[in-house]
Amino acid sequence: MSEAILSEFGTQIFIPICALIGIAFAIIQWFLVSKVKVTPNYSPANRNGQTEPLIQNVDVINDRYLVHRCAEVQSAICEGATSFIVTEGQYVGVFMAAFAILIFLFLGSVEGFSTKSHTCTYDTTRSCKPALATAVFSTISFLLGAVTSVVSGFLGMKIATFANARTTLEARRGVGKAFIVAFRSGAVMGFLFAANGLLALYIAINLSKLYYGNDWEGLFEAITGYGLGGSSIALFGRVGGGIYTKAADIGADLVGKAEKKIQKDDSNNPAVIVDNVGENVGNIAGMGTDLFGSYTESSCISLVVASISSFGITHDFTAMCYPLLINSMGILVCLLTTLFATDFFEVRSVGEIEPALKRQLLISTAVMTIGAAIISYIALPSSCTIFSFGAQKEIKNWQLFLCVCVGLWDGLIIGFVMEYFTSNAFSPVRDVADSCRIGAATNVIFGLALGYKSVIVTIIAIAVAIFVSFSFAAMYGIAVAALGMLSTMATGLAIDAYGPISDNAGGIAKMARMSIRTRESTDALDAAGNTTANIRKGFTIGSAALVSLSLLGAFVCRAGISVVDIMTPIVFIGMLVGAMLPYCFLAMTMTSIGSATLKMVKEVRWQLHSIPGIIEGVSKPDYATCVKISTEASIKEMICPGALIMFTPLIVGILFGVTTLSGVLAGAIVSGVPIAIAASSSGVAWDNAKKYIQAGAIYHTEGLGSIESNSHKAAVIGDTIGDPLKDASGLAINILIKLMAVESLVFAPFFAAHGGLLLKIF
Amino acid sequence: MSEAILSEFGTQIFIPICALIGIAFAIIQWFLVSKVKVTPNYSPANRNGQTEPLIQNVDVINDRYLVHRCAEVQSAICEGATSFIVTEGQYVGVFMAAFAILIFLFLGSVEGFSTKSHTCTYDTTRSCKPALATAVFSTISFLLGAVTSVVSGFLGMKIATFANARTTLEARRGVGKAFIVAFRSGAVMGFLFAANGLLALYIAINLSKLYYGNDWEGLFEAITGYGLGGSSIALFGRVGGGIYTKAADIGADLVGKAEKKIQKDDSNNPAVIVDNVGENVGNIAGMGTDLFGSYTESSCISLVVASISSFGITHDFTAMCYPLLINSMGILVCLLTTLFATDFFEVRSVGEIEPALKRQLLISTAVMTIGAAIISYIALPSSCTIFSFGAQKEIKNWQLFLCVCVGLWDGLIIGFVMEYFTSNAFSPVRDVADSCRIGAATNVIFGLALGYKSVIVTIIAIAVAIFVSFSFAAMYGIAVAALGMLSTMATGLAIDAYGPISDNAGGIAKMARMSIRTRESTDALDAAGNTTANIRKGFTIGSAALVSLSLLGAFVCRAGISVVDIMTPIVFIGMLVGAMLPYCFLAMTMTSIGSATLKMVKEVRWQLHSIPGIIEGVSKPDYATCVKISTEASIKEMICPGALIMFTPLIVGILFGVTTLSGVLAGAIVSGVPIAIAASSSGVAWDNAKKYIQAGAIYHTEGLGSIESNSHKAAVIGDTIGDPLKDASGLAINILIKLMAVESLVFAPFFAAHGGLLLKIF
Repeated sequence: MSEAILSEFGTQIFIPICALIGIAFAIIQWFLVSKVKVTPNYSPANRNGQTEPLIQNVDVINDRYLVHRCAEVQSAICEGATSFIVTEGQYVGVFMAAFAILIFLFLGSVEGFSTKSHTCTYDTTRSCKPALATAVFSTISFLLGAVTSVVSGFLGMKIATFANARTTLEARRGVGKAFIVAFRSGAVMGFLFAANGLLALYIAINLSKLYYGNDWEGLFEAITGYGLGGSSIALFGRVGGGIYTKAADIGADLVGKAEKKIQKDDSNNPAVIVDNVGENVGNIAGMGTDLFGSYTESSCISLVVASISSFGITHDFTAMCYPLLINSMGILVCLLTTLFATDFFEVRSVGEIEPALKRQLLISTAVMTIGAAIISYIALPSSCTIFSFGAQKEIKNWQLFLCVCVGLWDGLIIGFVMEYFTSNAFSPVRDVADSCRIGAATNVIFGLALGYKSVIVTIIAIAVAIFVSFSFAAMYGIAVAALGMLSTMATGLAIDAYGPISDNAGGIAKMARMSIRTRESTDALDAAGNTTANIRKGFTIGSAALVSLSLLGAFVCRAGISVVDIMTPIVFIGMLVGAMLPYCFLAMTMTSIGSATLKMVKEVRWQLHSIPGIIEGVSKPDYATCVKISTEASIKEMICPGALIMFTPLIVGILFGVTTLSGVLAGAIVSGVPIAIAASSSGVAWDNAKKYIQAGAIYHTEGLGSIESNSHKAAVIGDTIGDPLKDASGLAINILIKLMAVESLVFAPFFAAHGGLLLKIF
Repeated sequence: MSEAILSEFGTQIFIPICALIGIAFAIIQWFLVSKVKVTPNYSPANRNGQTEPLIQNVDVINDRYLVHRCAEVQSAICEGATSFIVTEGQYVGVFMAAFAILIFLFLGSVEGFSTKSHTCTYDTTRSCKPALATAVFSTISFLLGAVTSVVSGFLGMKIATFANARTTLEARRGVGKAFIVAFRSGAVMGFLFAANGLLALYIAINLSKLYYGNDWEGLFEAITGYGLGGSSIALFGRVGGGIYTKAADIGADLVGKAEKKIQKDDSNNPAVIVDNVGENVGNIAGMGTDLFGSYTESSCISLVVASISSFGITHDFTAMCYPLLINSMGILVCLLTTLFATDFFEVRSVGEIEPALKRQLLISTAVMTIGAAIISYIALPSSCTIFSFGAQKEIKNWQLFLCVCVGLWDGLIIGFVMEYFTSNAFSPVRDVADSCRIGAATNVIFGLALGYKSVIVTIIAIAVAIFVSFSFAAMYGIAVAALGMLSTMATGLAIDAYGPISDNAGGIAKMARMSIRTRESTDALDAAGNTTANIRKGFTIGSAALVSLSLLGAFVCRAGISVVDIMTPIVFIGMLVGAMLPYCFLAMTMTSIGSATLKMVKEVRWQLHSIPGIIEGVSKPDYATCVKISTEASIKEMICPGALIMFTPLIVGILFGVTTLSGVLAGAIVSGVPIAIAASSSGVAWDNAKKYIQAGAIYHTEGLGSIESNSHKAAVIGDTIGDPLKDASGLAINILIKLMAVESLVFAPFFAAHGGLLLKIF
């Protein structure tokens, strides 16, 4: 067993420097975006009384009135988003405080708040720090993870609301300029999440090290609290945000289109601003916190497994920090990749946008493969020993490198499989669109079948990744594969954030009544964002599956269970109940979205009927009330699904014990992953089938009919059904499986010590 | 350990006598139904040229012309059903022959076709018959199970097509008379399946006993082939029948309503006859063979477990035959229960039909509880030992009795939970109907959410049954609980068959243009049948879950696996892939139904356009071509889903071995049961929401609108989406999980000996 090339000192330097480079890069991008000027202090009266320009072919660059209108919309969106963040922030604060106390009490009670050291769990020859220390440090790292996620999410949303009008305005100069603004803004969020996450974790480890010293097992056990913190915020971001955005989206759609023939993006639609806010709340903050959760969890879990391997025993800090080094390298790779989009290449026409975005994914994956090879070579000894489930396994450094690669490339493959099934460039969606000729019912049947089909290949890809990575390096391999998948998160999140920014830019262009050419540019940006968003959805679910499985592995290990036998009735029942949870969650979120939508529709109808002149555009609708409805609904309706996720592991663990709980977690993963894939594929496919029909109405003569046709109406029904399925309910299942798993892991010592009350009684 | 009260001779007498009583009862019911005369040889010219009567308020009993029209429709339905059976029969024959050869070769090769005895698997001190004998007897019992199922299904369909016009004609005399005819006919099928199944199994055991003697382990191992045979036919019945009936149903609906405003039940609709045939094919033969599969599997599996318990060691034949004695008692109980519907009580008004049917379920469950107590008292020693998974467990006879009760009552509870969620008498469906006001999209969203909700309670009920029965008597308890749930199958199937018979009776009444009063009677019969059908759907899925679990347990035992650890990657990957299978299956069946429907719609449109005078009712549509399309589609489209079910266990077992296969089976159960419940609840809820709105249009003034309203249109879209989900795809998942499990069990010795090739190579 040789030493790693990189010294401990080198590691201690490399990680924070990479993180700081990431943060600096994000700030530079922000600065570059801010150079596009939006001056909201202009008064329309200056324009000689002309308040309503004719829609013209090209926008004048110096038209200050136009800038003013964009600024107005942007500030309304920003206000709505901030109001949501502030309201939600209060609830998040209370929840975090309460949960932090719970963590401290539960983990502290494991050894009755004793301050004495105890024998280590894995290496029984050594003495470890007391459970009370784990309680304290878990609580602190939980709060740290939560705060990092909140701050990164808040800043990400800020830059998004800061960038959308700027993208619109740049679109006057050409699609390439607008693309750069939108992508740079996305990159700000991507790098902030990745770099802040890494830096905070690095600091947490080093501070804990001051107390723990060489007790790596105790140190990294406490650090898992960081993953729980990050994931808990994802609950608010993804579920709360999902309810918010979908209530707004469906509400705007239903009322706008069905009732008064007002387009969804029309500034006369009272729900238009809340819909734009929703894009930021759900698709920026939601997606960001969700992936941040996976990112922190995969890092923490890899560290935990590494700490009980031979690295931990020989105190090889560099090798133990392999996961963090991979993440650091990821930031550098993503930085290079971003330059390909913004500086090395130029987007000249509408058709080049989508390839530019997809190239980002390919370049980051390819370069990261080299980066991972370098890190694996310099940071790992040529061979080491992993202790996993009683057995020990000798692994080579190239095997760990291959685990990273498996994750990295598997994510890309899953993404492109999802694209095949959900993009209207391929036959599956076209078949769904074609079925709209017969009616809405066939559209829904074919769309559901498409979702089910997309499950097949995706699951096989995940299964292969699990098999290969486990064969190489047991449970550590799976954790590292998840880490590899998420290592290029900065670029991934940049693409994720790019989508909603472009979407809002398009909305602003319509609301500001900009020229057709500008609107065509923003629409093209939006369309490309939609396609890549689908690729990213598959990726998100795939990474969640791997992360959850490695968390489950660590939980089983940590809870001291030697075997989880399916044929034990408590395990099988646990699995059955676990498999039911995603359905329970779907039922809750869909009902929540449904009732929030009804409220929104009611309010908008009321406004259209009682405020005279809205439809004609003479008087302004009351946007703020709609924002308030969505905000309140998202907070209120989140309680039930949130409680389901947070309390299930606690209740099962306390009443039925750790073995049942591992069954529940396994059941939830096994049943949740396919239903999440199916729901989001179907949802996106309906969306794109609708767009395909709409495009046919404009571009093709052999199309399926006009926007007024029955085919289009059928397609709109499918799209509306898919709305809650794809974002709010489907993807939120990620949170269900990940958060339950990480929570179980953090509370594992408590469950092992005091759990299974009901089984003890009988 | 005391002796059972009932002697071996008593058992040998009791079982066949009960089976014969059941068959005799079925024949008597058939005779009673046949007393209603339908004379098809009447010529309409005799009626002084009057070919088209006015629709009048009451039908004249002696109107021979009316009888003639009913007879005509009935013979068309009968012809269509027979043509389907004959066509399918050829494929079934070929499949059965091929699969029988496969069973013989695979099982025979376990010990290289050696004719030498070998050491027993469970009791290693004794010598068992050679594997070649298992191969021969498994093949024979496989064929026997298949033939019993085919014959019972064929006779069940015959009586159904024989009874529907008779029910229509009796409806002229009042709803009570019609109810009795429909219910008696249903009872014929119920008793034929239950009694034939029992008798054939009894004969098979006694014939095998001549060779096996006291080698109970070998005997009952060979007998599991009987369950596989029964279940294989269910594949054809449920999946093929499901595709047939849904292609016809949706085709008739879509064209009829959407295109030319022809009602679905209008004799001018070319798809009307194939729709009626579909009811018989899908809901009679399909449901019957499905439940027959569960019935034989639960009997076989209980016998297998009993054979390796202390009963087998002490050669206590009566105690070993406990499962068959429970089934025998079930036939007597169901006979008594049937008399409550047909003789003891009388249905006087429309409102009494549904309570009468539900009373059947309650009475049979209550009386069976007493029956099971008697059997448990006389057939079991006061205590015995069960060997399960290495451990042995001492159980009392009252504990086994309670296991039967748990299954019995759990089935009833699941049924009533399903009723709550899917009947329009309760708020869930009414909420869905209410959401139709806004549109089809909200209808679908709320309907899906309802389906997901219904999963929660159902899964908990199944979980409780598993826990309780396992606690009492380990894996034998679960098998006995499944047996208990299915012990009243004769009554259950009578209710199941009653539904389609009444549905067809209603269709015939409309086609024969009978009076409004008669049609109201038949509609009421149909409506009550729909409600109880929902109760029965929950029951079917619940029993399939229990049966599959006990099959899985037996498979694991027989394959010689000591533990199925979730945390082994091959098990987890197996589970993930198993969880994907129901989605794969759903995608296949839904696409199949979709494309079969398109063909049907095309044909019907062509007929309506090219045959002049169809719409006016002057010339007759070409029913036969529609029947041919459905028949061909159901055969052709069944190949892929059928191959998925039949080949997955073989491929996984041969390539990846028994441990992976047990993961696949567990994953399929855990993921399949909730999705089957969700799909069928949503489907039925949409159907009933539509009916609720339709009823509102007729009876209530505060209703949701007329049949022409947008609410109703939205409801129809939901109903059409639900059609493939509820019967064809959702319930067919039962077959997927059961058939894979029983197939794995039968092939377990082969997989254990020669399986896992890929894992052996690496």
